Amino acid sequence: MMFNPTQLRKDFPILDQSINGHPLVYLDSAATSQKPQSVLHVLRRYYEMDNANVHRGVHTLGSRATEAYERAREKVADFIQADRPEEIIFTRGTTESINMVAYGWARLRLQQGDEIVLTPAEHHSNLVPWQQVARVTGAKLVYLTLLPDGNLDLDEVRSKLSDRTKIVAIQHVSNVLGTIHPIKEIGAMAHQVGALMVVDGAQSVPHMPVDVQDLDCDFLAFSGHKMCGPTGIGVLYGKKEWLDEMEPTYFGGEMIDLVELEQSTWKETPWKFEGGTPIIAGAVGLGAAIDYLQQVGMEDIHQHDSQLAQYAMEQLSKMEGLEIYGPAPGSQRAGLVTFNLKGVHPHDVSTVLDSEGIAIRAGHHCAQPLMRWLHQAATARASFYLYNTKADIDALVSGLESAKEFFAHAIG
Amino acid sequence: MMFNPTQLRKDFPILDQSINGHPLVYLDSAATSQKPQSVLHVLRRYYEMDNANVHRGVHTLGSRATEAYERAREKVADFIQADRPEEIIFTRGTTESINMVAYGWARLRLQQGDEIVLTPAEHHSNLVPWQQVARVTGAKLVYLTLLPDGNLDLDEVRSKLSDRTKIVAIQHVSNVLGTIHPIKEIGAMAHQVGALMVVDGAQSVPHMPVDVQDLDCDFLAFSGHKMCGPTGIGVLYGKKEWLDEMEPTYFGGEMIDLVELEQSTWKETPWKFEGGTPIIAGAVGLGAAIDYLQQVGMEDIHQHDSQLAQYAMEQLSKMEGLEIYGPAPGSQRAGLVTFNLKGVHPHDVSTVLDSEGIAIRAGHHCAQPLMRWLHQAATARASFYLYNTKADIDALVSGLESAKEFFAHAIG
Repeated sequence: MMFNPTQLRKDFPILDQSINGHPLVYLDSAATSQKPQSVLHVLRRYYEMDNANVHRGVHTLGSRATEAYERAREKVADFIQADRPEEIIFTRGTTESINMVAYGWARLRLQQGDEIVLTPAEHHSNLVPWQQVARVTGAKLVYLTLLPDGNLDLDEVRSKLSDRTKIVAIQHVSNVLGTIHPIKEIGAMAHQVGALMVVDGAQSVPHMPVDVQDLDCDFLAFSGHKMCGPTGIGVLYGKKEWLDEMEPTYFGGEMIDLVELEQSTWKETPWKFEGGTPIIAGAVGLGAAIDYLQQVGMEDIHQHDSQLAQYAMEQLSKMEGLEIYGPAPGSQRAGLVTFNLKGVHPHDVSTVLDSEGIAIRAGHHCAQPLMRWLHQAATARASFYLYNTKADIDALVSGLESAKEFFAHAIG
Repeated sequence: MMFNPTQLRKDFPILDQSINGHPLVYLDSAATSQKPQSVLHVLRRYYEMDNANVHRGVHTLGSRATEAYERAREKVADFIQADRPEEIIFTRGTTESINMVAYGWARLRLQQGDEIVLTPAEHHSNLVPWQQVARVTGAKLVYLTLLPDGNLDLDEVRSKLSDRTKIVAIQHVSNVLGTIHPIKEIGAMAHQVGALMVVDGAQSVPHMPVDVQDLDCDFLAFSGHKMCGPTGIGVLYGKKEWLDEMEPTYFGGEMIDLVELEQSTWKETPWKFEGGTPIIAGAVGLGAAIDYLQQVGMEDIHQHDSQLAQYAMEQLSKMEGLEIYGPAPGSQRAGLVTFNLKGVHPHDVSTVLDSEGIAIRAGHHCAQPLMRWLHQAATARASFYLYNTKADIDALVSGLESAKEFFAHAIG
C-alpha cells in the first residue's frame, strides 16, 4: 500500500481527540508510541478467546496460548532477521534486556582491567547497568568522544578499543540527538579486538529496518511500547552462543529443568530466561504490532520519519532564539528534534505547547551525562512516527512562536 | 449484589465457547484466571484515550497516564491494606517479586550460618531464588516438615526457628494441595527470632481477603493474571523500612536520581525498583481487576471457592481409583483439588478431559520437591474461581468417569 500518514492516523483513535480545546498533536513517540486498532483488537481477542497459561497445559486453551506466544517469538525473530526464534527472549523492555546482559553475562565474565566502551550519549538504561558491572568486577568504563553534532569519529573509536575491551555497548539511535550510529562498523571493530557488541535498539528498531545478521551484533535490546506494541513487553536478541553462556537473572517456575531441595538446573535458551508466567498477552500484542509495521513497511516508515525530521529542522532553524542539538539540517538524523528556547525552561515551553494540544517531552530524557555535555539541565524534544504529518510540525512551529511571545520578557 | 456465579460468568465471554464440540469448562484458574469485560474495557480505554509514558511528561496525556498508573498503586495498597502506596512495587509477577527480595535484600544481608526457612511444598518461584541466595551467601535452607495432609505443625515450626533464622519464606496457599497456612502465627514466630516473613501470595490474594497489617508480614508477592488482571503485571508489597534498605535489582531510566559518568544514585521507594518504562497498562488493568473483585466481594469469593472445593472433594472422594492429595474432605482447603487416577498419567487424564471441553492442569505444577514428597511424578489439578459452578464440577466428575472407562485396561 502507498504510505499515507493521514490514512494511517485512522488506525490510531487516540489521536482523534481534543486537548485543552485543540486537536491533539502527539510528538512524543520516542517516549512511547500510540497503538493501532489492530494491536488492541488482537490483545482483546487473545483475552476473549485463547487466554490460558503457556507451556504447561495439555488443554486446548493452553495449546492455543502457547502457540500464540511462540508464534510471536517467531515474528520478532523474522522482523530483525535473527537466525532462529530461540535467540529471542521476551523481557519487560529495553532496560530489563540490557540488565540481563550486564548481570547474566558481563558480570560473570569481566574482571579487573577489562574495559567496557560506551558513549556519553547513552540512555541511562545502557549506562547504569554497566556502571554496576564495573563496580562489582573492577572493569573500567571507557567513554568515546562525541563530535560537536553528536556523531562518533570512527578513528577515535578504533583508538579506544584494545584487547582489554570486552564489551562495546552503544545506542543505535540517540534518543536526544537523533544521531544514527554506524553500528555495523563499530561492531566489526569490537569483534576485531574480541569484544562483544551490545546494541540499544530502543530508538532504531521501531523506526527503521534492523537486520541483526547484517549488523552482526551480539545483543540487541528493544521495547514493544515504542513500536506500536503494548507496555511491559520488550526483547533481548542474543546470538545463541552467548545466550547459552548467559545465566538467568531470576529464578522460578517454567525456567527450570529439575528442582531439588538444595539445587536446580535450568532449561535451554530462551526459556531459562523467562521464569514465571511469561508476559503472554504482551508478546502476542507485540507480534500484532510487528504485523502492522511490516504491512506499512519499515523502509517507508524510516523515510517518512527522516523526512519529517528534515522538515522540522528546516522550519525550526528559521526560528530566532531556538537552539537545536544534534546533526545539522541536511545531515542524517532519526525522526526527532531536540531544542531549547533560549532563556525559557523546557518544562515551561512544554506546558505552553500542551495548552495548545501539542504533546512534546521536556527533561533530561534519561540521559543526564549527555545533558551535561550539552551544558543544559534539560531540553525539549519533539519526536515523530508513522502517524505524524507535516501539519503536526507546522502546529509545533506555530506553538513555539506563541511560547516565544508568551515568554518574550524572559528572552529579552 | 448477591453472589451469583452464573450471573458473573456473563462478564467472562471466553467461557462462552465450545471446545472439541463441548461447552468449555475452565478449571485451571490457579494457573491463570480469565478476565472480565470490565478489565478488557479499561485496558482498551487506556490505550485509546490516555496512553503516554509516565512521570516524565508535562503534557496532558502524560499526566493522565501517570495518574492512572499511580491510582492503580493506591488501589493495590487499599486492596491488601498496606500502610501506604509507596509500599507497593509493580513487578511482572510473583516470580519477579520474590526474586527482588532474594537479590535486593537477602543476598546483601545474609551470611554463612544464617538460615532461610521454607516448606517442601513451595512453588519453584519461592524456592529456587532462595537456593541462589544460599549458594552465594553460605546461608542454609531449613525445610519444615509437612504433615500427611500438607499442613504444618506449629510446634515443629517453632522448633526450627532460632536466632540463626533470617528469612521465613512460605506460601500462603499451596498451589498443589490447597492447604492454607497460618501465616499470621508463623510470622509472629519469625518476628520473635528477628527473622523477616516473606509470603508467596500467588494463590491467596486472588481468592480471599488478605490484610498485610493483620498478617504483619514483611513482604507479600502476587500476580495480576491470577486475579482477573492482565498477564505481565504483579506486585511486591514490602514494609517501607525493608524497601528503603532493599537495593534495586535492575537499573536504567526513571529509577535514578542522579547519573554521572562513573556512578549514580537512586530515587526513593518504590520508584527505585521500577526502572525503565513501567508496565503502565498492566498496572491500570490490575487496578480494574481489583475494582471488579471488590465489587463482587472477596469474602464471598473465598466462601464460594471453598464451597466448590468441598463439593468437589465430596464428589471425587466417592470415585474408585482416584487418589486425592491434601487436606481431607471437610477440612479447610482453598479452591482447588489435586488428584491422580491410579495407573494413568495425569497428562492422559487431562487430554481425555480436554476432548470433552474440560480444562484442567497436569504436571508438576512448578513444585517438583512436593511431587517427590507425594511420590508422584505429576498430578492432575482442577482449580476454581468466582465464575465456576457446581455444574462445572459435575462435568469434571462425569469426564473423569469417562476417562476411567477409557483407561479401564490400564487401571485393571
